[in-house]
Amino acid sequence: MASSSNGIPQKDGKEPDPTDYANYFCTYSFLYHQKDMLEDHKRTGAYHRACVNNAQCFKGKVVLDVGTGSGILAIFAAKAGAKKVYAVEATSMAKFARQLVAHNKLESVVEVIQGTIETVELPEKVDIIISEWMGYFLLRESMLDSVIVARDKFLKPDGALYPSHARMFLVPIRSNQSLQRKSDFEKSLEGWTEFVEDMKENYQVDLGCLDPEYHKEQTDYFLHTAQWCDVHPEQMMGPPCCFKEYDLKTVTLEELKAPLRANFSLPVMSPGPIESLCGFFDTHFKGSKENLTYQEVILSTAPDATGATHWGQQAFHMFPRVMAQPGDRLVGSIELLRKKENHRLMQVNMEFKLEGSSPAAKSTPSRKVSWHIE
Amino acid sequence: MASSSNGIPQKDGKEPDPTDYANYFCTYSFLYHQKDMLEDHKRTGAYHRACVNNAQCFKGKVVLDVGTGSGILAIFAAKAGAKKVYAVEATSMAKFARQLVAHNKLESVVEVIQGTIETVELPEKVDIIISEWMGYFLLRESMLDSVIVARDKFLKPDGALYPSHARMFLVPIRSNQSLQRKSDFEKSLEGWTEFVEDMKENYQVDLGCLDPEYHKEQTDYFLHTAQWCDVHPEQMMGPPCCFKEYDLKTVTLEELKAPLRANFSLPVMSPGPIESLCGFFDTHFKGSKENLTYQEVILSTAPDATGATHWGQQAFHMFPRVMAQPGDRLVGSIELLRKKENHRLMQVNMEFKLEGSSPAAKSTPSRKVSWHIE
Repeated sequence: MASSSNGIPQKDGKEPDPTDYANYFCTYSFLYHQKDMLEDHKRTGAYHRACVNNAQCFKGKVVLDVGTGSGILAIFAAKAGAKKVYAVEATSMAKFARQLVAHNKLESVVEVIQGTIETVELPEKVDIIISEWMGYFLLRESMLDSVIVARDKFLKPDGALYPSHARMFLVPIRSNQSLQRKSDFEKSLEGWTEFVEDMKENYQVDLGCLDPEYHKEQTDYFLHTAQWCDVHPEQMMGPPCCFKEYDLKTVTLEELKAPLRANFSLPVMSPGPIESLCGFFDTHFKGSKENLTYQEVILSTAPDATGATHWGQQAFHMFPRVMAQPGDRLVGSIELLRKKENHRLMQVNMEFKLEGSSPAAKSTPSRKVSWHIE
Repeated sequence: MASSSNGIPQKDGKEPDPTDYANYFCTYSFLYHQKDMLEDHKRTGAYHRACVNNAQCFKGKVVLDVGTGSGILAIFAAKAGAKKVYAVEATSMAKFARQLVAHNKLESVVEVIQGTIETVELPEKVDIIISEWMGYFLLRESMLDSVIVARDKFLKPDGALYPSHARMFLVPIRSNQSLQRKSDFEKSLEGWTEFVEDMKENYQVDLGCLDPEYHKEQTDYFLHTAQWCDVHPEQMMGPPCCFKEYDLKTVTLEELKAPLRANFSLPVMSPGPIESLCGFFDTHFKGSKENLTYQEVILSTAPDATGATHWGQQAFHMFPRVMAQPGDRLVGSIELLRKKENHRLMQVNMEFKLEGSSPAAKSTPSRKVSWHIE
């Protein structure tokens, strides 16, 4: 959704700090956040094309925009010829969406409603639900839940969802970021050792008993937290593997809330150790069976030589790295869970083994690793 | 308090982002946060001296540490000779405090209790309350409230608070940071103008109606938010003015919750425009009337050539700057309010006028300015 907190700007080209989210809920950074998402042209452009290049699908239709934010998708739908657009937004961004609609002379078509999708009522069923609900690695934020609630409440049986499908991918990559991460981790442990010495010397207090806990904290943070990244296609060591596809017309809330479990098989085509698995997603705008889009639009967050979308990709660094050789194959399973403490955050568990004829494949045992997506 | 979120580390020597707080509530950064506060030696050292250099005041006494965090202040009190120390901590840091106490063989003296000060019960009244409760500009975080609750619940009538007093200061400074801030603000507005053009060109949507709101957001953020700073004494344009002193023995919860209103008069001793007012605090360890400390310890966050504490100072930049000359005096009033949305954050309102014989003093009207402390 446009009002989600996906659109965190990068600072100096570095990974956006997960804690930057708080900033987006400051009263004075609403528009800054919207600007940041809107000017991601791969994102905004895909939605724009999905609407205006498929005007035949929108002509005379009733549309619902779930989490309209600035109102931009509702405006695209109206410009594509929709008869009526309900633009639902939970936050006070609704006020600005209303202004924008009026300023663009679309108030006879677009009706902005402030409220949550779970509580609002509409006077009619809708033909199309449009929404930008995607989070990091597709599912972070769990905003798709609201779209599915909206579908079950408001979409006509032959209605369409924009996007209609979403897919999740993994690909093995080379990554200097993972080396940096390891080095930062080691520096952090050294810093702790010096700190413990320093406390003993200055205050005669021995903090050594906290060593294991500090080590655990830092291991969790540096080695087991997925990192935002902007991967160049040349870093990919083989073709990506699609391990999950969602058809938004049929997926259930129960399925979304349950752990996602899937298998993957990643052929290694080029030499060098696998330093990370890179996770990303794409979404497709196919319309519905009864009302197919004329031009299928794809919004992809795959590694791209022209730079990443604001979602980037998620790097799951592997320590130690996997000494694969061309012809090997990384075979395993992935499990995605929502965190108990905060259902918008996630945990990723993987189990994998290198298969093939290389020495490493023959000698490397299977591994289990977990990462947080913060 | 040790478990407060004061101790945010600086990143590359820059102001810690207010949103870094969130990170400190991640399950895996508890100890990182504690380390950061403990290794601020101006802070930890002051508490250490207040205890061990005043062992006579602690000998045989019952002590309460409010918000013990790692347990370090409770340990200092025990090492200074306290008979019994109750160390109260609301978060799960209590577990580590307990480990640290045992590891330092003080479990016969220090009892760690997990709970909030508002709900815990102690089997006896205490002679001394020790606590590190200070936030940015002293009062941010509003942690002093808990100490006052503890005092009213548990402190003997002739008991002492460590620290016993706190003072707040303002001083006019020169600051390149304010110029940078202004320039960042202007860049941000230019970026918005380009963005609006870009949206019109790419998507035929006119966002111009949001110009005033974006301008307001960015003005609030860049020009009316106090900034963490590490001011060198040479930047000060005159002596600081103490505008408020708290005697922790007598201040009431009502007084703390009400707006703080005070006057200030800042003599300008050196030339150059006043770019910012710099706000800071100190705390004093004087003991109580009945049990004075032998050595009065001061923990100061004033501008210091050896570098700031982790609190730094707060810079209230002034746009436009005040064209003061030596001999002038900046005279005004300050009002500090807790924010309605979040009582741990604050708003600062000032009204001031330049007085003196310089041309600027004669021609400059009085001004009202507000800042957020985020």
